This record gives sequence, C-alpha cells and structure tokens, in this order.
Amino acid sequence: MSHYTIGIDYGSLSARAVLVDINDGKELASAVYEYPHAVMSEYLPDSKVKLGPDWALQHPEDYLNVLRQTIPSVIEKSNVHSSNIVGIGIDFTSCTIMPVSREGKVLAQYEKYKTEPHAWVKLWKHHAAQPEADLINKIGKKYGFLSRYGGKISSEWMFPKVLQILNEAPHLYHETNSFLEAADWITLQLTGNWIRNNCTLGFKALWDEQHGFPEKAFFKELHPDMENVIEEKFGGEIRKIGESAGPLLQEWSEALGLSPNTKVSVGNVDAHVSASSSKVVDEGKMLMIMGTSTCDITLGSEKKEVEGMCGVVKDGAIPGYYAYESGQNAVGDIFDWFVRTYINQTYEDEANLQGISIHELLEKKASVLKAGESGMVALDWWNGNRSVLVDTNLTGLMLGMTLATKPEEIYRTLIEATAFGKRRIIDSFAKSGIEIKELYACGGLPHKNRLLMQIYADVCQLEIKIASSLQAPALGSAIFAAVAAGYYESLQEASDKMASLKEEVFKPIPENSKIYDQLYAEYIQLHDYFGKGENDVMKRLKKLKLSILDQQTIHA
Amino acid sequence: MSHYTIGIDYGSLSARAVLVDINDGKELASAVYEYPHAVMSEYLPDSKVKLGPDWALQHPEDYLNVLRQTIPSVIEKSNVHSSNIVGIGIDFTSCTIMPVSREGKVLAQYEKYKTEPHAWVKLWKHHAAQPEADLINKIGKKYGFLSRYGGKISSEWMFPKVLQILNEAPHLYHETNSFLEAADWITLQLTGNWIRNNCTLGFKALWDEQHGFPEKAFFKELHPDMENVIEEKFGGEIRKIGESAGPLLQEWSEALGLSPNTKVSVGNVDAHVSASSSKVVDEGKMLMIMGTSTCDITLGSEKKEVEGMCGVVKDGAIPGYYAYESGQNAVGDIFDWFVRTYINQTYEDEANLQGISIHELLEKKASVLKAGESGMVALDWWNGNRSVLVDTNLTGLMLGMTLATKPEEIYRTLIEATAFGKRRIIDSFAKSGIEIKELYACGGLPHKNRLLMQIYADVCQLEIKIASSLQAPALGSAIFAAVAAGYYESLQEASDKMASLKEEVFKPIPENSKIYDQLYAEYIQLHDYFGKGENDVMKRLKKLKLSILDQQTIHA
Repeated sequence: MSHYTIGIDYGSLSARAVLVDINDGKELASAVYEYPHAVMSEYLPDSKVKLGPDWALQHPEDYLNVLRQTIPSVIEKSNVHSSNIVGIGIDFTSCTIMPVSREGKVLAQYEKYKTEPHAWVKLWKHHAAQPEADLINKIGKKYGFLSRYGGKISSEWMFPKVLQILNEAPHLYHETNSFLEAADWITLQLTGNWIRNNCTLGFKALWDEQHGFPEKAFFKELHPDMENVIEEKFGGEIRKIGESAGPLLQEWSEALGLSPNTKVSVGNVDAHVSASSSKVVDEGKMLMIMGTSTCDITLGSEKKEVEGMCGVVKDGAIPGYYAYESGQNAVGDIFDWFVRTYINQTYEDEANLQGISIHELLEKKASVLKAGESGMVALDWWNGNRSVLVDTNLTGLMLGMTLATKPEEIYRTLIEATAFGKRRIIDSFAKSGIEIKELYACGGLPHKNRLLMQIYADVCQLEIKIASSLQAPALGSAIFAAVAAGYYESLQEASDKMASLKEEVFKPIPENSKIYDQLYAEYIQLHDYFGKGENDVMKRLKKLKLSILDQQTIHA
Repeated sequence: MSHYTIGIDYGSLSARAVLVDINDGKELASAVYEYPHAVMSEYLPDSKVKLGPDWALQHPEDYLNVLRQTIPSVIEKSNVHSSNIVGIGIDFTSCTIMPVSREGKVLAQYEKYKTEPHAWVKLWKHHAAQPEADLINKIGKKYGFLSRYGGKISSEWMFPKVLQILNEAPHLYHETNSFLEAADWITLQLTGNWIRNNCTLGFKALWDEQHGFPEKAFFKELHPDMENVIEEKFGGEIRKIGESAGPLLQEWSEALGLSPNTKVSVGNVDAHVSASSSKVVDEGKMLMIMGTSTCDITLGSEKKEVEGMCGVVKDGAIPGYYAYESGQNAVGDIFDWFVRTYINQTYEDEANLQGISIHELLEKKASVLKAGESGMVALDWWNGNRSVLVDTNLTGLMLGMTLATKPEEIYRTLIEATAFGKRRIIDSFAKSGIEIKELYACGGLPHKNRLLMQIYADVCQLEIKIASSLQAPALGSAIFAAVAAGYYESLQEASDKMASLKEEVFKPIPENSKIYDQLYAEYIQLHDYFGKGENDVMKRLKKLKLSILDQQTIHA
C-alpha cells in the first residue's frame, strides 16, 4: 500500500500544492490558489489607507484559504484515501513576517487593527525598512554576527521589519506577542504549536545554532525598547527543518478531510526546500533556483566565510550540512525587461508566423550566434548585486553596441552577463575553499531555455543537471513531510527515492569556454572597476536620480 | 530687376537644386533627382562583377543627369528668365573621387573599362582602402603633415583610395590622367576648365596652402610608382572656393537653357558650403551640420592644432579664415538604430493613435523627464569616435539601466550622450585657444527635434541658432555662385543678405546645465577610461568579434 504526502509552496502571488507518492515522488495531483489580495503595495483592503513607497503587504486569510482550497482539491483529484496521507510540508517566501497575538492571530485579523498598515503581513519584498537595515548594518559591525552574512543584511530581513514597526507604530510592536515568519505561522495554525524553523531564523533573523541571537546590548543600541525583544517577542521552540512540528489539529483535519494523525513538518523556505527535490544533498554541488531572480544553495561540511554570501546556516537546507545561500537579484527579470519593452513588430510577426513566443524566437536567433560574435559584454546589475558585492545601488551596464547591433545580440549578452555573475559567485566559494564541482538547476527558466543552460555550462565550465519536477519547492516540501512523518531515516534517503533529474545534462563546450574565459576576464575588470569603488558612477547617478525625484515629489 | 543663382547639392543618394534670388536668398524653386544607380556596393551595373566588402561606387552619368533634369526644372518652376540667372554653384559629398582620362571622362565611361570596379567613382563611404590608410598613417608620421589632421587620416580620403587603385588595378592607375574630386569633375564638365578647389584638397588630399602636397619621398615610400603622383595625376589650377571656375560651356548652356555668360563657381563640399547659408562667417561660432552623423565647421583667424580634429584648411569654408572640421560619426543614426529596432507595438499604437511618428512620441515622452532623472549615462560611440579620440574601433556604452528603465529614458540618454560628445569637442577647441561662443545648427535634425536642440544648449551651455533653410548646402552653393558671379564683394556680404536664421534661439536653462555638469563629468571619466587606453575592452571585443567572423567565413 502506498503512502502520500502533500507539499505546499507559498509563492508571492499564489500557492501550489502537490500530492506525492512517498515511494517514488510521483506527483499525483496538484492545485493552485491565487491570493485574492495579491500583493498590497498601494492601499489596504476595504479601506482608504494609503501605503508608502516600497511597501508590500499580504492578507493572512489568503494563506489560510490556500489550505482550505488546495488540500481538498488534490485529495479529490488524486483519488487517494485520506488515511494514506501521512504528512504535510510547507515552504514559504522569506523573509515574510507578521505581528501575532497570544491567540496566534495576525493583528490585522482583529477588527480594531485592520486599518493599521503595520498590523499586516510584510511580504519578503517589502523594501520600506531600508533605514532600519542601514542602522542594523552600522551598529552590527561591533557585534560580529554580520560575518555570517557577507558583512551586510538586507532590508527584507526580520529585524529591519520589526524595527520599522517599533519606529512607526510602537503601540503595535507592544501589542505583538510574537513576530513570526509566515512559514512558522502556518505550522502554528495547523498544529497549535509555537515552533520556529532553524532555516529562516538562521538566514533572516540573525540566529545561529552556536551563538543564538545577537546579544541584548546590540538590540538595546538599535532601540531602547528592543533590549528584551528575544525574550518578549521571539518565544517558542526552535526545531530543525526535516523534523515534525506535530500532528494536525482536530479542527483542521475535519476541515481538510485529513486524518488527525497527519504530521506537519517544520516550516521551510521555497529555495532551501528545493535542494532535496533537486538531489543536492551533499557537498560539491550548487543548486540554482532560477526564475525572475536566482537563489543558490550550496552545502558544506565546514563553516567558512565566503565573500558576499547571503548567509550560512547549519542544517539550513539539508540536516548534517552547513547551507550557504547566495544569489543574483535579477535573472529572468532582465530578459523579461528586454523582451517586454524592446521588441518590435517585425519580431512579433516573425514569432507569430512560427507559432512561438518572443522568448523562443530570440533564443533561436541568439543560438545561431557564436560566443564573442556580438562584440558585447554587460554587467548584470539591473536590480543591484546580491552576492559578492552586496550592493543594491549598482545598476546595469552594457557595452560594445554598434549601429548593426541586433536584439538577439543584446538578448544573448544579457544571458551571458548573468552567467558571468554566476561564475563570479562560484569563484568566491572556491577562494574560501568550497569547490563547486557540479551545477544543478530548478525553477521555470531551466526547463524553458536551453541556450541559457548551455551558456551557463560554457561560462562556468561545469556540467548542469536539472530537476525533473516543475514544482521543485512543492515536491521538496512533500519530501520533508515524508521525513517528518517518519517514513525515511534521512533527507538524503528521501531525496534519493523521491527526487529525480532530467536525463539531459548540459556539458561545457570547450571551444565556447575558451572564448568565454576572455569575456569573463573583461567582465571581472568591469565588475571590479564599477563595483569596488574605482568608479562609483552608478551610485552617484542613482543618488542624483533620487534627489531629482524627491524634488518632484516636494513640488507636486 | 532681380538676378538669380542656382545651387546644386550632390548628396549620397540624390541631388537637390534650388533657384535663389540673390538679393534676399529667397528660394523660388527646387528640384530633386535621385540617382538611378544609387550606391553600388555589391555589383557593377549591367555586369556580373561582384564588389568586395566595404565598397561603395557611383555612376558618373547619374551626376550629369542631375544637371539635365534639375536645372531646366527649377527654371521652369520659378518662371525666371534664364538671362537673369547669373551663376551656378556646386557642392558635393567628399571625399568622392574618380579616375579621369585626358578627355575629362571617368574611365568607367569607356566601354573597355566598364567591367572594372576601379574605373568607377568611389563614393565617400567606400571603406575598402583601410589597409592603405593604415600605411599612410604609419609612414606619414615622419613627414609632419598629419598634425593638420589630428594625427590620423581616414580611409575615406583621396590618397588611400588612389593607392588602392594602384595596388589592385595598376593598369588603371597608369591609364588615369587625373584623379579628381567629384565636385571638381562637375565644374570641369560645365566649364571645360581643370580646376581643383582648395577645400577638398586641404581637407582630404593632404594639401596645404603653405606647404603644398607632401613631398615626393613620402609618396615614394608609399609605393615606388607614386613618387611623381602629384605632377602626373594632380595637374590643374588650384582655386579657392568663392572664386569662379569660368563661364558655362556653349554645349551646356544650350542643353540647360542658360546663358553662356552664367558663371560656375569653384566646387565645394556639402558641409563646408553650409557655413555661408547658416551665417557662420566669422570667429567664435561652431556650425553643426546634423543628420545621420554630425560635421562641425569652426572658423579661426589663426592656425592651431586641436586635439583630434579632422582637419584645418586656410580659406576652407569662408575665405579669410582657417576652417576647422570636426565631427561625430553617428548622431541621428544612433537614434534611428534605437527607434527602428527597439520600439514595441504598444508605443507604435500610441504614436498611431496620436497621429505622430515614433520619433515624435519618444521626444514627447523624453521631454517630460528631468535631466538626470533616468540615472543613466552613455558613450556615443556606436560608430566609433571621429573627433578627439579619432578611433573607429570604439563602440557604444550605456549604464544605469534598471528593471524599470523605459524606452524614452534610453532615447534621452542617447541624445544626451551625443551632446556630451559635442561638448567634449568644444572643450578641445577651447584648450587650443579657440573659444566657441555660439552654436549654429543646420540639417534635418535641428528642424525636427526641439528636445535635441534644448539638450545641446543645456549641455554645452551655449545658445543655438538654426539656419532657416531646410536646404542649407544647396542655398550655400547658390550664395557661393552669387559671389563667383561678382554680385557680392565677399562671402560675408552675400551671407548677410542671402542667409537667414530661424527666430527661435535655444538658450541654456541654468537648472538643467547644473545637472548636466555632473553628468558630463561622469561622461568624461568614462570617455577617458575607455577611450584613452586605461581599459581597451572595446577594442579587444572588436578584435575577438572580427576573428570569430573571419573563422566563420573560412568555414563557410
């Protein structure tokens, strides 16, 4: 008799559930639920409260409706008996946080708070806490923990967001019983247990297995009221991903049509959970989760400092290993920017005639070009640089254009630029003694764009294997659920049985790699010149731009 | 009773004649003739002879048909009595040259030579004599004359083209009685007089009023057969622009319906002749002839060396002054490249809805932006750098792009880049003690694009006046004809009466200029870094590109 788990992947605009056979990882059914409130960046729902620039909120009820809609749906579609469903796993975007009451509700769920912006869920891409992040980075220098994060943290993380609440809505800060990651809030709802997962604590909340949270003096220096923030607002038990958070509450088992014995695994993050479903369960491998941006997960047996990494957390992706996170702020987003905005009717017509998308047409045309043939090179900083330089004020650069430069040349140059960015990250790891011997990829892009994969292989001079599943995070959550439910001894074992790779492996073509060595040398020279202080033109231009936009706002 | 002159402007694809009242410059009639053979870049006419890459030939009969078609046409349209037409003036693209027989015919006009590519007219943009130009620049270093040309000459000029004929078709070189500029060939046809104009000799044929042509030793070093090239192939009298080349031959006066007393002025160049019709007849002014590229004419009372200028010639534009030429290889061409290739259907639809062109729509959208608001800067080297750096191997650069960058921001950044290029040229003149106090503009672009003019004024911090005539070269030729016919004492006097400027003057807006000072400083830092050897990435990429394209040719 087969057993099954359900993995639920909470994304930025929708969530997806898959029901999986734990023997072989076969996906029997899936269901998607789009959040009715999507991302709230201008107004609160049902109110006239306007939000500031760079805000991004979400509605907690949307998250609960995901459970109510998708779980019964996959059970019904798969025709599996609910008693054979042994576990549920959750992964979430991160760092997505909310202020939670003693009753386990988000403050915004109370009538009295619903017109207060700070009572709502702050989505990962809420970028309005930059001043708070700057302060943490400044004060944090004295306290040592920043070395685990490449020297700098992002405004997206837990404490900038918490400090913003305290600064702008102190009464809500004080009303809050607990600031929770959304992943942990879902497991709280399902199990009634206040459990925090070690992955988001480590990567986004400055926590470390060895050192715990930063010391009181640090928090006091941030804000006098925050001295005891850990004791006051960060209670609950810390458990590792892959462990169980407990069985399903009776009320949910009834609502969802599941057995009350169903185990809920500890919450996880969309990127990190994908290592298990991409067979990245030991050293020497880097997993690239490729979409609008790219997040990389690399496993290591030792804790090392890597230049400009996003973070390193013990047991942060696969128990038994340190998980290193790195990434690129814009990958698919850059190609989309170009394709959405800069492709003319002639190309549109050509794509229509061939019955393919513009992306496919450009891929086709760019595939005919040889490496180096366009005479161009670009810096992939359209959305800043996340790893190595860790600088959101850097911007894109392209050079080598002539009057004969064609769209497919720009398209290919943009792809190459992101590949060079990837190689630069791999080089950082190598310098710290962490050698990457193979690349793995999952996400939408690797399945869609063969040229992209070939260029990455040629540039990085590494083979690339691709996860079979198009739902790597949801499948990953289902794998973690199988382990939490006790059906496998280890994540490695579960991954071995439940995950699979596409047969096709992208291998470097030596002739191309040779040319890309030359282009990469050019990339590095530009990368260091514009990124490491020799010419800060990008930052000066951005500052000028912001000062002009500020003036316009004042005059408006 | 009024008198009239006819100015004929020979362009790259067509010629235009205007019939003008010499009292006030009023244009009574105009006519255009498109060359039936246009530019021959792949095959000779009526033959299967294929041309090499970068060739550009023209048909001499097309030039004669211009006279036969346009002159009777403007006489008829204007209803002027032909006895009142006192002069004809000619200007031509340059350096456009042909091998001419003792009888005054282009060799290609003889049956026996017509299948030989080197027997035809080489248009200015024939770029197949680059190896010959390289040799001249190498050997020329020893002989001093290069300092009049910013240190380097172009493959477009007279002697690279002549040497190419000698190298590749020596029998034709030896058959040639005279290598002529096309402008001088037309005056030869019309008057029977072998006269060379000082302007093209000075700017394109290494001649100087003070020093004459380069010495024999130089030519001998170029090629032993060229030792006596000047005596053998460069006969004829040198006359200054503004002088008469003689009266019309009887046969032409009959064919065209003109009086045999009609004076033909010495041939001239399209750019240089426009100084007179744009009221640039004394010092302190720079005229920009703006179209696909920009050519600048500046007058000075002394001969000075200006960094990277194209050339300086005494009496080369307005008698009594040294004429300095400078320019930018691509201006309108860059905007066209962007607009032709990178504008999507949404913008097309918006332009159609408003009943305006895409260029107009972009101008409109870009006009709403503030200087500096886009956070971008570009180097305007899409077709190399003609003045200051004098390097065709430089390529375009743009930086500051984000995922939100819009087409109108790129469009405006490209305009700004060409304006910075212009300011850099003006700075070179200033460094050599030639101060530009006012800008003048003629050509298609200044009439079409107000934003362009305003940005140039803001960036250069100079007022810009625009020639009224849309046919500045043809009107200029008519002005020169009036002087040659003896109706004015000087070009200054003729220009004063016959030329006019648009009422609207573009004045710098101090608020914008202040921001452009900052952006220009960034431009200069990038200009020097990429253009003066600190980082030769553009040249290395171009070399790599050419080596890859070469391999493809070999494999094909």
